[in-house]
Amino acid sequence: MKEVFTIASKESEQCFDITDQVKSIVARSGVTDGFCHVMALHSTAAVVVNETHDPNIGRDVITALGRMVPTRAGWLHDEIDDNAHSHVKASLLGPSEVIAVEGGELVLGTWQGIWFFDFDGPRDRRVSVRVQ
Amino acid sequence: MKEVFTIASKESEQCFDITDQVKSIVARSGVTDGFCHVMALHSTAAVVVNETHDPNIGRDVITALGRMVPTRAGWLHDEIDDNAHSHVKASLLGPSEVIAVEGGELVLGTWQGIWFFDFDGPRDRRVSVRVQ
Amino acid sequence: MKEVFTIASKESEQCFDITDQVKSIVARSGVTDGFCHVMALHSTAAVVVNETHDPNIGRDVITALGRMVPTRAGWLHDEIDDNAHSHVKASLLGPSEVIAVEGGELVLGTWQGIWFFDFDGPRDRRVSVRVQ
Repeated sequence: MKEVFTIASKESEQCFDITDQVKSIVARSGVTDGFCHVMALHSTAAVVVNETHDPNIGRDVITALGRMVPTRAGWLHDEIDDNAHSHVKASLLGPSEVIAVEGGELVLGTWQGIWFFDFDGPRDRRVSVRVQ
Repeated sequence: MKEVFTIASKESEQCFDITDQVKSIVARSGVTDGFCHVMALHSTAAVVVNETHDPNIGRDVITALGRMVPTRAGWLHDEIDDNAHSHVKASLLGPSEVIAVEGGELVLGTWQGIWFFDFDGPRDRRVSVRVQ
Repeated sequence: MKEVFTIASKESEQCFDITDQVKSIVARSGVTDGFCHVMALHSTAAVVVNETHDPNIGRDVITALGRMVPTRAGWLHDEIDDNAHSHVKASLLGPSEVIAVEGGELVLGTWQGIWFFDFDGPRDRRVSVRVQ
């Protein structure tokens, strides 16, 4: 079972709680026990499992990465494109997460949800979900 | 095959070598070839594969993250809780790892082991392991 | 289906585009739908999915990590070995990636490829690939 859904970011750097979209794909898959793989199909975006109840956590992650990886700080890739910092941030978080599925549901802690980060918006972004 | 085990952290930031716990779950699973997924069920904790023979490597990771993500550095989430830095650190390392299983054993390099990091202790923490 | 291939790094910190090696293992595996797990079998190396068309992106990642995790910055592990920074960098990127396989091919975005990073070369390095 596989599905791709899209996200339209509106800002240069933005985070989205995609927990509900992924949960409904898992429900539709009919898989009761296995793995769910969620992956951003872009190299300037990332998927992270963390607390999504407070949207400020996603914003704090963006702020922290902005301090660690400043824009236009002598990056080589900026010579052909202006988004080297976006690639480095996406590499640090990673494009994908695997989550166990048991009893037809994602195995997440009480406060865990699924974040999608766009570090090079605004753009239309694709997220791949495979349940098996 | 799935199992959850607990870890009681004693310090605010602490690392644990959980390689043996995961290996014994893999052995009990009876799975000879597949994947082992290890995940912290918390959004202020992380699972990382790296060298565990020298416990100082885990401590160096905690120190490095402390320099990159200082406490109380204007984080928005600190307004409702005091642990924004813990969420950011956990996001950078990621909550889970997938390790191949072959011949009934984890496929790890000579020096690789499995770390559990708690960035918001002391607490009782849960680690989910699924082998398939 | 599993395979291990080797990479001979020539520099202390170096990145390699291993997309083609992984794709040919997936093709040989005969798996049409499933997961592909790619893992560095070393604790001072990492596997990351990001854009590989511009080799400078990998170099920018190395530069960024060098700024975040300076060498000989009081790391405890340096007392027994001189590569604490390599372990911390590898932990931040993570040793492995999981990529979905559909129709016999890796599910990657247009610009996504697979990087191997060595942070403690020059050495002979092993990469494990399991398709299932």
